[in-house]
Amino acid sequence: MLFFRNDYGAGAHPAVLEALCRTNMELTAGYGTDHYCRKAAETVRTLCRSPQADVHFLMGGTQANKTALGAFLRPYEAVVAAASGHICVHEAGSIEQDGHKILHLPSPDGKLTPELLREALAGPFNEHTVIPRLTYISNTTELGTVYRREELTALQAACRELGLLLYCDGARLGSAMDAGGTTLADYGETCDAFTIGGTKNGLLFGEALVIPNPALQPGFRNCMKQQGAMLAKGRLLGVQYAAALEDGLYGRLAAHENRMAERLAAGLAALEIPLLVPAESNQIFPILPDGAVEALEKEAEFEIERRIDPSHTCIRFVTAWHTEEADVDALLAALKQAMKQV
Amino acid sequence: MLFFRNDYGAGAHPAVLEALCRTNMELTAGYGTDHYCRKAAETVRTLCRSPQADVHFLMGGTQANKTALGAFLRPYEAVVAAASGHICVHEAGSIEQDGHKILHLPSPDGKLTPELLREALAGPFNEHTVIPRLTYISNTTELGTVYRREELTALQAACRELGLLLYCDGARLGSAMDAGGTTLADYGETCDAFTIGGTKNGLLFGEALVIPNPALQPGFRNCMKQQGAMLAKGRLLGVQYAAALEDGLYGRLAAHENRMAERLAAGLAALEIPLLVPAESNQIFPILPDGAVEALEKEAEFEIERRIDPSHTCIRFVTAWHTEEADVDALLAALKQAMKQV
Amino acid sequence: MLFFRNDYGAGAHPAVLEALCRTNMELTAGYGTDHYCRKAAETVRTLCRSPQADVHFLMGGTQANKTALGAFLRPYEAVVAAASGHICVHEAGSIEQDGHKILHLPSPDGKLTPELLREALAGPFNEHTVIPRLTYISNTTELGTVYRREELTALQAACRELGLLLYCDGARLGSAMDAGGTTLADYGETCDAFTIGGTKNGLLFGEALVIPNPALQPGFRNCMKQQGAMLAKGRLLGVQYAAALEDGLYGRLAAHENRMAERLAAGLAALEIPLLVPAESNQIFPILPDGAVEALEKEAEFEIERRIDPSHTCIRFVTAWHTEEADVDALLAALKQAMKQV
Amino acid sequence: MLFFRNDYGAGAHPAVLEALCRTNMELTAGYGTDHYCRKAAETVRTLCRSPQADVHFLMGGTQANKTALGAFLRPYEAVVAAASGHICVHEAGSIEQDGHKILHLPSPDGKLTPELLREALAGPFNEHTVIPRLTYISNTTELGTVYRREELTALQAACRELGLLLYCDGARLGSAMDAGGTTLADYGETCDAFTIGGTKNGLLFGEALVIPNPALQPGFRNCMKQQGAMLAKGRLLGVQYAAALEDGLYGRLAAHENRMAERLAAGLAALEIPLLVPAESNQIFPILPDGAVEALEKEAEFEIERRIDPSHTCIRFVTAWHTEEADVDALLAALKQAMKQV
Repeated sequence: MLFFRNDYGAGAHPAVLEALCRTNMELTAGYGTDHYCRKAAETVRTLCRSPQADVHFLMGGTQANKTALGAFLRPYEAVVAAASGHICVHEAGSIEQDGHKILHLPSPDGKLTPELLREALAGPFNEHTVIPRLTYISNTTELGTVYRREELTALQAACRELGLLLYCDGARLGSAMDAGGTTLADYGETCDAFTIGGTKNGLLFGEALVIPNPALQPGFRNCMKQQGAMLAKGRLLGVQYAAALEDGLYGRLAAHENRMAERLAAGLAALEIPLLVPAESNQIFPILPDGAVEALEKEAEFEIERRIDPSHTCIRFVTAWHTEEADVDALLAALKQAMKQV
Repeated sequence: MLFFRNDYGAGAHPAVLEALCRTNMELTAGYGTDHYCRKAAETVRTLCRSPQADVHFLMGGTQANKTALGAFLRPYEAVVAAASGHICVHEAGSIEQDGHKILHLPSPDGKLTPELLREALAGPFNEHTVIPRLTYISNTTELGTVYRREELTALQAACRELGLLLYCDGARLGSAMDAGGTTLADYGETCDAFTIGGTKNGLLFGEALVIPNPALQPGFRNCMKQQGAMLAKGRLLGVQYAAALEDGLYGRLAAHENRMAERLAAGLAALEIPLLVPAESNQIFPILPDGAVEALEKEAEFEIERRIDPSHTCIRFVTAWHTEEADVDALLAALKQAMKQV
Repeated sequence: MLFFRNDYGAGAHPAVLEALCRTNMELTAGYGTDHYCRKAAETVRTLCRSPQADVHFLMGGTQANKTALGAFLRPYEAVVAAASGHICVHEAGSIEQDGHKILHLPSPDGKLTPELLREALAGPFNEHTVIPRLTYISNTTELGTVYRREELTALQAACRELGLLLYCDGARLGSAMDAGGTTLADYGETCDAFTIGGTKNGLLFGEALVIPNPALQPGFRNCMKQQGAMLAKGRLLGVQYAAALEDGLYGRLAAHENRMAERLAAGLAALEIPLLVPAESNQIFPILPDGAVEALEKEAEFEIERRIDPSHTCIRFVTAWHTEEADVDALLAALKQAMKQV
Repeated sequence: MLFFRNDYGAGAHPAVLEALCRTNMELTAGYGTDHYCRKAAETVRTLCRSPQADVHFLMGGTQANKTALGAFLRPYEAVVAAASGHICVHEAGSIEQDGHKILHLPSPDGKLTPELLREALAGPFNEHTVIPRLTYISNTTELGTVYRREELTALQAACRELGLLLYCDGARLGSAMDAGGTTLADYGETCDAFTIGGTKNGLLFGEALVIPNPALQPGFRNCMKQQGAMLAKGRLLGVQYAAALEDGLYGRLAAHENRMAERLAAGLAALEIPLLVPAESNQIFPILPDGAVEALEKEAEFEIERRIDPSHTCIRFVTAWHTEEADVDALLAALKQAMKQV
């Protein structure tokens, strides 16, 4: 079976795995207080040009989002997010579990804009309502769309104007940076906090949470522990992030998956298959006749995104660091065949 | 100033206050275990034709909603409500504070229908999402619209089909029953739990929570206490509910406020003032030119509901058990005058 | 039956009730934004000599404690309290429900001391533990013991030294002030926040929460609303507190109940009945042979505190603002009789 | 430096790591729905002789405890635990964060007994208190003591009698089984839920949560996801547990660490160094003169447990699956030297 289901179906990139094997028998302090984590955090700070930032390594995306937002907000403060945001629909209500409402903003492409924020903040908000306090964006979004530098800057300005913190869920930040031409420094400059996703870009697991805003830093390790988000052998995260970030591997993997996605998108265009939103990163959302979907399921693994109309379905293809050109070509061939059968 | 701001601006109906004064120096057990509460609960059970129901007396609407939903739901279970629902926008995120997401359904008239529920439950819901478990309706709604018997029955059927509990916030249940021709027995038969609002219908304060569904009953008093929702001198609630329910006062006050609202609505129609939604109960939402709103604010107290367009605003008039015909006529006269000035 | 069960068995003092009746038909703004609440808050500030304090009126003690501590603490911060503290054993886990651990300190008389605090804070506390942040005391304590001015000052100093906030649950603050010679100004000067209990000292219900520490003030009204702790007809609280505080009624009622308790304590001493702790305020804890307890239950209502040994039980007598000398004398006579039957 | 700080200082046992490397490039379904997790769960069920048990793989101990107890308890239900329990003092208040009070029972050896439970449950518990619902034990305990089969059976009987669930935190279950002669089947038979710890017995990370009690099973995966406790590449846990459990490696590693601990305990006895509690498993708590502690810190890593008196300190030595006889002997030699310097 061809695998285009997601970008976390395999283990770690061999170089990351090798680093884990190489350091396996070292005896270090626990809970991320070891020298690997310290060094990886220093690397992150340097790459983000945020010497004052706190850097924490967590195990997964839901955990990182939940721990961060739970730590940053007072009980009555709310989050503003696109309705398609991961925290809105794929994290089982974890933000609400910690007490915070999310205001869902409609956004066809999964992105927020200053206009959407201003509209949402028009209110009224008062002592009978939640108080919006943090804007959640994901880059890339859940629809594969991408924020660029100027969009981040504009969101930052709008957030400041509206009294909001800006938080970026970077589960797929590698792909977003490659696709949108941003660097880690751009996030260090525009976000109050953000994650650099490892799970979906070559690590066994891991999300690095960067907190440039000093006001959000105190007590965070206690919150991590309380949330069950402090890995005993924390150095596993430091070792992996060091392997991924120190020589640029992280960027190369993201670039590769984006190139594979571009090849796939070109092939879809040639087949005149429409997309839900324009292809920008490593997630692509073609709309197919139901018969073609059914036929394709015999050849490839992918996710069903949603029903479009009584006879068409939007599906999702994801390319990964280990996707090969031959995989893409084989998928396109299978797709061509599937389309014929309709 | 004419007072049409809300239906909780005055204290208690004289008969209710008199009952409090009459019993003031009695010495009774605390926390609602006294004979007044027992008797009032029995009256509620009889009126609701729910001999098996548990009846609890709480102090306010937000408290009742929060305590009930917090007690009824498991951590990952969610609430389905109209986006205009009180718990969605006027209770400062109290349902989320206790860990539960609310799925907001768009509804121009503030009411839910089986179709809206089925659409919302179409999903997908799975182990990565919250699981909708309880439908929250308010009767009357926040827009003054009213559910009738057959609508409640249809909602009950849809909820059973979809695995949902049905909860009715009856902060204005008196007005709803008068306007929609329902009786307490209708709620006892169709709802898993519901409140009979006292605060907005002649009591100093109080919401009676009725729980006909036996599966939702165990442990509720502990939840009340934990939520700070158990009044030390609990009998104050029993005494008030007895005074309001035993001789039909509750229904008479609601009928009066609805009659006053009808008089007001007729006057608005004569003035050709459009309404946001048709007037059905004691809340009326006229749309006025901004100049008229400004002029009227000198004569009357009312709430601003929302801006309609650059020159028009929707406001809210509420009639209460103490509203007099002369008040309504004076408001209409002031309104006629205000409209002239535009 | 003689009533010595508690100090919240009756309604309100006639003067308080009269104020409610007199203002009953006034139409005011809701949720405590009315002029009665503003005036009562101003009176509280003046009496506490805390012009900068925020004053909020809540409905009950559990609610006030829960709302305050939930608002003041970050998720991993903990409360330090005597193991007999009301929040430890009589509030159904409401502080934990909002996420905060309480460290229970053993204290035979229900009071905390700087030594107990220092010992408790010796730790270790680190990122794997909760961080103690707030000292909870109750005055009078649950055992009727009383903090005096110098004890409050010493606790304040210890709290500052240890990085703790000082919070006083004043459900019986009237009795405490009368018994210990403190004034509201003493609490305004030593506590970061405290309550002035109304429910147990002549009001229908109500706890005034005073927050002298400006750092704890922002967002509190949102927290109140979210907790369901904002009374719609909020003025009911303002009216009652005005009636109780403006002419000294609050102090007179407390003095009366303490005098009645002294009379009772003297009688107990004459009967050579031992006490669990020395009598200081309006709660008295005699230790009786089980047979005497059983006999007395036919004549008087009181609470069982705890079993002392296989044949003795500690019970609790509480005097109230409405307790009369004749009641005390009748109780002592009944007690004398009950002791004879053993 | 000799490493006796803990049993999670190294990575994974080579056989476990090899399994991860071998399967690294396989493409599987996520979130623990893959065939490795299914097979490992089946192995666990077989070893526990609990064919009806649900088995979930989580990332760490705090996370497992928090997710399990949060899922099992209603809001007002409380946990009973030894005061030294991991959830009481080392998990940053994570159980309270999810709303549940823990009743701390004093226990010098860290173990609970039916007598302690009965005493704790003597109450009073009522609608003003939390309701104890779950007994938390850890095996081995935080003091290295061990429950044996008959103790588990007795606790189970006491729990049933008292209406309590029995939960065993098996972070060091391997060591406990080896030391106490129990098998996984014993836990399957006596516990409502328990964990089989991987992190401290040869895995990179992981806790297997076994839930034999069917009443506790529904909705658990939603709770996991909501808590951020569902690993994207869930198969990493299945692969590791398969490697550890299928051929008995898990037991051999535990046996080895216990043998090393016995060697160490024998050496301590020979040096006439007293222990805080008798050595039973892989954690040993010697009491040393402060001077000896200081001297030893130059040679070995270990934890400080607590101060015993002004001149003595209790420290903790932990042996691990990778501890060698030579390490133990070197530690004993260093200790002998350190004792001389006092």
